[in-house]
Amino acid sequence: MIKAAVLGYGTVGSGVVEVIEGNNAQISKKAGDELHVKYILDLRDFPGDPYEDRVIHEFDTILNDPEISVVCEVMGGVGAAYQFTKQCLEAGKSVCTSNKELVARHGAELLETARSNRCNYMFEASVGGGIPLIRPINSALTAEKILEVKGIVNGTTNYILTKMEKEGADYNEVLKKAQELGYAERNPEADVEGHDACRKIAILASLVTGKNVDSEKVFAEGITEISNDDFAFANEAGMTIKLLAICRLMEDDSVLAMVAPFMVPMDNPLATVNDVFNGVLITGNMLGDALFYGRGAGKLPTASAVVADVIDCARHQGKTVICMWEKEEARLADAAEIQRGFFVRAREAAKGDVEAAFPGGRLLDVPGHSGEFGYFTPVMREKDFLKKYQELGDKVLGKIRLL
Amino acid sequence: MIKAAVLGYGTVGSGVVEVIEGNNAQISKKAGDELHVKYILDLRDFPGDPYEDRVIHEFDTILNDPEISVVCEVMGGVGAAYQFTKQCLEAGKSVCTSNKELVARHGAELLETARSNRCNYMFEASVGGGIPLIRPINSALTAEKILEVKGIVNGTTNYILTKMEKEGADYNEVLKKAQELGYAERNPEADVEGHDACRKIAILASLVTGKNVDSEKVFAEGITEISNDDFAFANEAGMTIKLLAICRLMEDDSVLAMVAPFMVPMDNPLATVNDVFNGVLITGNMLGDALFYGRGAGKLPTASAVVADVIDCARHQGKTVICMWEKEEARLADAAEIQRGFFVRAREAAKGDVEAAFPGGRLLDVPGHSGEFGYFTPVMREKDFLKKYQELGDKVLGKIRLL
Repeated sequence: MIKAAVLGYGTVGSGVVEVIEGNNAQISKKAGDELHVKYILDLRDFPGDPYEDRVIHEFDTILNDPEISVVCEVMGGVGAAYQFTKQCLEAGKSVCTSNKELVARHGAELLETARSNRCNYMFEASVGGGIPLIRPINSALTAEKILEVKGIVNGTTNYILTKMEKEGADYNEVLKKAQELGYAERNPEADVEGHDACRKIAILASLVTGKNVDSEKVFAEGITEISNDDFAFANEAGMTIKLLAICRLMEDDSVLAMVAPFMVPMDNPLATVNDVFNGVLITGNMLGDALFYGRGAGKLPTASAVVADVIDCARHQGKTVICMWEKEEARLADAAEIQRGFFVRAREAAKGDVEAAFPGGRLLDVPGHSGEFGYFTPVMREKDFLKKYQELGDKVLGKIRLL
Repeated sequence: MIKAAVLGYGTVGSGVVEVIEGNNAQISKKAGDELHVKYILDLRDFPGDPYEDRVIHEFDTILNDPEISVVCEVMGGVGAAYQFTKQCLEAGKSVCTSNKELVARHGAELLETARSNRCNYMFEASVGGGIPLIRPINSALTAEKILEVKGIVNGTTNYILTKMEKEGADYNEVLKKAQELGYAERNPEADVEGHDACRKIAILASLVTGKNVDSEKVFAEGITEISNDDFAFANEAGMTIKLLAICRLMEDDSVLAMVAPFMVPMDNPLATVNDVFNGVLITGNMLGDALFYGRGAGKLPTASAVVADVIDCARHQGKTVICMWEKEEARLADAAEIQRGFFVRAREAAKGDVEAAFPGGRLLDVPGHSGEFGYFTPVMREKDFLKKYQELGDKVLGKIRLL
């Protein structure tokens, strides 16, 4: 019998209990032993809840119970969650989490603590919700040198962009609707400014490089400047606009990690990842591209990923599953040095200036959009592009990187 | 040091050696120990090959060498491949394979042999080439009750269908070109009649149900009856045509396993899986749909999956990784009892007859396609549909199931 504890009885926490008890027959078979939740730690009581008898308020009960071999940290934050995780690992209890903030901040350290204590720190649910992403990188695509990981890892912004495109609604209007539906937080900054995606790509980049990628050093540009006009031009050119998180191994062994809106050709598999769905393309040197697609958030998909980690811990008791992510800082490439093409939207009157600034590009007009035009620059260094773009001042109305 | 042997130095076999030696630094780190190929078994000699000194002709050299802990069976067939696999497993040597025919025929038995000898029989490469599919089912989506697996698992037929659609070329013409390019065999029957896809879905169905699904009992319909006209109607209706392999858990605990061409709405993620790519949607009761997409064949992608298995074996020496697939035969659902809608193409003059046979359906005309029309029947039992369809004789020109 494997006995688990759940820290935090919120959305994901109650999902974890529901998955473990609801799919218990399959889960126990796959874990190789019967698995149950013994404790649920929360400050609140839950009278009438089917599992109210398992709710406790003292973390030490869990820490001091030798029967507990695996703990699900689904409380969030980097304060108590960090303390509890650290103490569990030091006591040889494996920890499984959906807490991307904690993983991004202290992943390398907590993995080391797990190794020293022959247990596991697992975080499949921290990126891509229920879509297997961490496990493919750690345990499936192991024969590959992974060259690039790029994708849509934030459901809120993908929902907003999809609605803007499909319904022609404007950014603020869609954001408001997303907040009403619970898809966006009241303070949406972490999502719309790209910080959430930064944490997730930092986690993936750390796993790909084996070194620590600091999420606060990842280049981030959000979606707040994207307008309906941009979509009109993108669609006219056979493209769409997606907030992409990218990590790429560079030739000099540095790693590019960035989050920004990109224009994506419609025949790219990421172009059809819509609404709250996530999709991630992993490029290996042998395999080429593989896409992983599904629900990147939500109570049960996220809980399912946490429980898959619990099962993996159960299968590897007393043994640490190999996970490359050392404390040594990865050397980050400078996003401003990357070469690519750019889309520029500008006032009709500035056509000559834009063509002069970026010679050799391609003009794009959209029927009905009089007064402005689009322009695709040739491939150029981002730094050089930005300098010229800024010099154009209020003649230009917007810019988007091209994938 | 982990020493591996490769049985068969053909396309996949040489890919396996290339991947192990080419990505050796990463692979050895992920395996937790240095990994090299000690023997390559083949009847031929390979003078001038960089690994010619490792080529041997006697299987017993491998079997009797205690240094060999893992063997890659990439020779194909169900004769010697079966004998060698069985003997290796009985000797406690793990076996990794891309041989879907052998896995489909003897998987349950060989897994049992592996279990009895505390080693592993792994076959990630047998379905979907380099795309992780077996491992997600066995090791990632473990908290899920998997309800359905459906997808495109044969690259040859997907290439043919894509070319027919995009270039308006006819079936025989595209098949000929595919044969010239090496995408189709000179005898294409196993692909175009759906037998290859049957083996793959039988393997996936066995893993999902935990019981043995006999690939020869899987309902199969190939793509030889699909015409350009069908694509004209499909596109007019916002759909495309794909050869899908499907396994679905039914309410009575039987399992539906089938391979057939389906009309697929363009907004389904499978609709955009084109050319030689494979894509598989796995539906879990907690997660909903997750899509896995990539190169389903080819030397290096397939070899990459074999080597990922080798790494997994190295990580689990002396321990059998849990894989549910017992010898007990699964109870198969009768495909003729399934309810769904159908597309019918028929001669213009038969409009009244078709509407009378399938009342309540929907007519579809394609501009420029005079002389024939399309019709979408209401949802009905396949058996009932087929009876009426056959009664229409030569008034009808084709039928395709609707997804």
